[in-house]
Amino acid sequence: MKFLPISFLILALATATALAYDPSPLQDICVATDDLESGVFVNGKFCKDLKQATADDFQFLGLNTLGISMARIDFAPGSLNPPHTHPRGTEVLVVVEGTILVGFVTSDQLNNTLFTKVPYKGDVFVFPIGLIHFQLNIGNTYALAFSGLSSQNPRLITIANAVFEAKAPISADVLTKAFQLDKKVVDYLEAQFWYDNN
Amino acid sequence: MKFLPISFLILALATATALAYDPSPLQDICVATDDLESGVFVNGKFCKDLKQATADDFQFLGLNTLGISMARIDFAPGSLNPPHTHPRGTEVLVVVEGTILVGFVTSDQLNNTLFTKVPYKGDVFVFPIGLIHFQLNIGNTYALAFSGLSSQNPRLITIANAVFEAKAPISADVLTKAFQLDKKVVDYLEAQFWYDNN
Amino acid sequence: MKFLPISFLILALATATALAYDPSPLQDICVATDDLESGVFVNGKFCKDLKQATADDFQFLGLNTLGISMARIDFAPGSLNPPHTHPRGTEVLVVVEGTILVGFVTSDQLNNTLFTKVPYKGDVFVFPIGLIHFQLNIGNTYALAFSGLSSQNPRLITIANAVFEAKAPISADVLTKAFQLDKKVVDYLEAQFWYDNN
Amino acid sequence: MKFLPISFLILALATATALAYDPSPLQDICVATDDLESGVFVNGKFCKDLKQATADDFQFLGLNTLGISMARIDFAPGSLNPPHTHPRGTEVLVVVEGTILVGFVTSDQLNNTLFTKVPYKGDVFVFPIGLIHFQLNIGNTYALAFSGLSSQNPRLITIANAVFEAKAPISADVLTKAFQLDKKVVDYLEAQFWYDNN
Amino acid sequence: MKFLPISFLILALATATALAYDPSPLQDICVATDDLESGVFVNGKFCKDLKQATADDFQFLGLNTLGISMARIDFAPGSLNPPHTHPRGTEVLVVVEGTILVGFVTSDQLNNTLFTKVPYKGDVFVFPIGLIHFQLNIGNTYALAFSGLSSQNPRLITIANAVFEAKAPISADVLTKAFQLDKKVVDYLEAQFWYDNN
Amino acid sequence: MKFLPISFLILALATATALAYDPSPLQDICVATDDLESGVFVNGKFCKDLKQATADDFQFLGLNTLGISMARIDFAPGSLNPPHTHPRGTEVLVVVEGTILVGFVTSDQLNNTLFTKVPYKGDVFVFPIGLIHFQLNIGNTYALAFSGLSSQNPRLITIANAVFEAKAPISADVLTKAFQLDKKVVDYLEAQFWYDNN
Repeated sequence: MKFLPISFLILALATATALAYDPSPLQDICVATDDLESGVFVNGKFCKDLKQATADDFQFLGLNTLGISMARIDFAPGSLNPPHTHPRGTEVLVVVEGTILVGFVTSDQLNNTLFTKVPYKGDVFVFPIGLIHFQLNIGNTYALAFSGLSSQNPRLITIANAVFEAKAPISADVLTKAFQLDKKVVDYLEAQFWYDNN
Repeated sequence: MKFLPISFLILALATATALAYDPSPLQDICVATDDLESGVFVNGKFCKDLKQATADDFQFLGLNTLGISMARIDFAPGSLNPPHTHPRGTEVLVVVEGTILVGFVTSDQLNNTLFTKVPYKGDVFVFPIGLIHFQLNIGNTYALAFSGLSSQNPRLITIANAVFEAKAPISADVLTKAFQLDKKVVDYLEAQFWYDNN
Repeated sequence: MKFLPISFLILALATATALAYDPSPLQDICVATDDLESGVFVNGKFCKDLKQATADDFQFLGLNTLGISMARIDFAPGSLNPPHTHPRGTEVLVVVEGTILVGFVTSDQLNNTLFTKVPYKGDVFVFPIGLIHFQLNIGNTYALAFSGLSSQNPRLITIANAVFEAKAPISADVLTKAFQLDKKVVDYLEAQFWYDNN
Repeated sequence: MKFLPISFLILALATATALAYDPSPLQDICVATDDLESGVFVNGKFCKDLKQATADDFQFLGLNTLGISMARIDFAPGSLNPPHTHPRGTEVLVVVEGTILVGFVTSDQLNNTLFTKVPYKGDVFVFPIGLIHFQLNIGNTYALAFSGLSSQNPRLITIANAVFEAKAPISADVLTKAFQLDKKVVDYLEAQFWYDNN
Repeated sequence: MKFLPISFLILALATATALAYDPSPLQDICVATDDLESGVFVNGKFCKDLKQATADDFQFLGLNTLGISMARIDFAPGSLNPPHTHPRGTEVLVVVEGTILVGFVTSDQLNNTLFTKVPYKGDVFVFPIGLIHFQLNIGNTYALAFSGLSSQNPRLITIANAVFEAKAPISADVLTKAFQLDKKVVDYLEAQFWYDNN
Repeated sequence: MKFLPISFLILALATATALAYDPSPLQDICVATDDLESGVFVNGKFCKDLKQATADDFQFLGLNTLGISMARIDFAPGSLNPPHTHPRGTEVLVVVEGTILVGFVTSDQLNNTLFTKVPYKGDVFVFPIGLIHFQLNIGNTYALAFSGLSSQNPRLITIANAVFEAKAPISADVLTKAFQLDKKVVDYLEAQFWYDNN
């Protein structure tokens, strides 16, 4: 079974991937660049010479060290942003158009409680850092939302992909025990195509 | 001289005001509440009992400890979000409708350089933490933008208000020297009405 | 299908649950206590009067504000610590006895790559903050490991529990689409008993 | 109108400019150096080889990663340290000689309240991070103060310079509306010489 | 043997004691107060009602949450600020009068290297966070210095006091082995008066 | 006088030395590497190309940016881990075998109070960040403990080494006054061999 794709546009460091409550900046700006020659990397990104920064940089690369990013999510009718986490960022979503069901689940210690809502247009909803959450377009028109995320690189772990499409696959012993599924079902799931939301 | 008002709705901790790269949360959620009895306060907000949290909390009060907030900015034609800072948060704005001029100025050490742009609809622009920035609707239709801010309480310092409408007023000696204005002009400015963007 | 239980003892704030790169302490010690009267809570825990601290506090409650905890994990032969995350802490595990298979999966952006190993006795292995990981006793004797976690309250999200045992259950629409399972299978899974690792 | 210059000596990373509650150091010392060859930069500064550090480094460059700096401020009679902010650092000033008027203004949300005082010799006064503040020598002798700042690179935004001397100039539309001034006055101000406190 | 006392005035949260790279503030100001009734404490200090803050608060109690403090050190001729650490703050000292010898020792991993200097009047010297350091007045006149510390509550551990004047005393077994001293010498030292620099 | 050596194995970034509540990671992993060519360093470590990471990296070098480390401590009968601090990390120790006396001393402001205990096998004990602490094997068999430390590089300052074996030696004036010892005793101590726990 598939789900209708959603269009997920990260309006931020488009070339980067993951985040947290980031370390503070130690200068006004630090526009991300790659240091192709040295072959080494740093926590975050290298910065280009401050004197070479331009206004255009502040649409993407200028987010480096600034602790936030923004995403645009377009939902076709019935489409799902499947259960996932942002390990290093809280997400606050605002509904601009349409009707979506949103929810998150707390940790084991808070009994895996589901908080769920259908926000009105213009409402926001918060998905606390690290918790599993999802959004589903339950209307019959397109829906549009924007999300702020509290890191330049919030990262994304789509649960189904991480569990059933890991490279290399997680051992069948682990998955059958963890999810109480027959090995045949696990094999079947690992053979499916899992939509890439990255 | 006045400017056309903008409508500025903080889609977040509506009862609070200002922020930074906030301290990390030490539990899943910490829904803000006031402790009316004790008469003391804490850095941030007290939290209500976790067991009493509801989904509705995650439109506003549930942002407590989660390090982010969202604002909606409606611009009437020609209206201005005047030069201001968010001392404790970076802002990333996305243009949803209309045509706005945005810009920020760097610190003295970077020569007070102005970075300015007219983003296309759907573009984002970043205003680094603590720097003076503004937005002006240069079109002849309404404009709409959403901004993510990297703190639950980014605070707002509108420069004109802080300088010319401080309570009590800043000494004339300071303002005349600082802004190279005659005392009469300073007195005049301190007598004006300054639009409250709070 | 079940898995053999493991014994999982949190050698730390036994009354609390999970954390991250915690805010710094602003005094030497801050032994956790509950403020039963005020009915409010704070980010983290209240502290008791410093003068009342005793050496015994530093086995559990004295961890408050100190940014770390320790867990002991006993594995019966064949038992599994199922795929889970610690949203707010990195875990470093040392194998003291036995033979366990360990692994973690990176985020979508790093292609959900599995890093897996069978450490020798005395070796350590690191599970980066927020990533899905697991341990499985692949030997035929008991295994023992200790884990340090980089927060006083690392929290625990067991993936299977959070997805299939949420209270209230996550909508079938979401789960069938997310995991490409028939509704019958989803219903079946939601009806199972999921071992409580808390 | 001009103001008598003050002498403002940053007793710290003299070659650098800006700050915050800085990221923690991950080693004892990290003496700042420039990496002239790579053409890239990092958040903060590169460090030289630890083995090459000398005691002299700990007058300036050794402040790198250490989260603090110190400034000396000499005030000629009547001179002003004009309204400015340090976006990334709190400042604590101690009056060593003379009589100065000090003050800061809170954010809009706290009604732009002015806190002002004439400290006695030996007293300190705190200017919270990100708020507009100033000092004025109201005596007829020289005054001397030292300030600690809670970042290796606090940055400085002099309000008048940032608003009226931005490069390129901020649009007249913005400034006339923001400050309720005639365009002629704005043009006049933009043509003035603004003392460089950097 | 005694040392000539120094006069050590903490120009900051006079009622508090110790620090770090502190958690960020979540509002403009948070003037410290004690909550006498509840009998509980928090990491840091409770704050009084913002509306009751006055300018006088910003000489001491207003430092709460602001991440910095200032100390004044008066040295009689020959007096010593004995080897000590500030566990949670870097110290930057400026010499205002006199001639003092300053120094710090790096960690074991950097071979306990001593960095030492006699700064000129007006010079600064940095003592990195957590390292053992000292100052000695080597002139024959009074010396005066001011120190900024990167925390509201840097704490102070005077090595001699902590080792030889702990309450209760550290076991003789530990001290004789640690310092390679006879038990008689250890007993003798534990019986001495150790000057209180607190 | 000597003490029986302990075997102290850092089960972590074996090539590095010191730490704190570390800055957050801005990507999933950042395996430490040296950049031999550039001759410069960064706060922490450079990272190798993410695509070249292997599972083996997560025994040591993969700890880079992940905010924790683990140590194994083997105690011969009667051996001592002498009074020391970890400037940038809290330590939580678990006793696996044997009988050890543990303790720490608070700061001057908390009156250098000693908290001491003989934990049972399986118990933990916490040594708060930056405070002087020690462990002594008081049994007549080998003891074994593991410690988690809340930083990738906690650093180690062995008090006796830092004070009496600094390179170059701390001035006799300082040590005689600080420790109330005759110069002969100081000279004697500085000539001893101090066991290297690094």
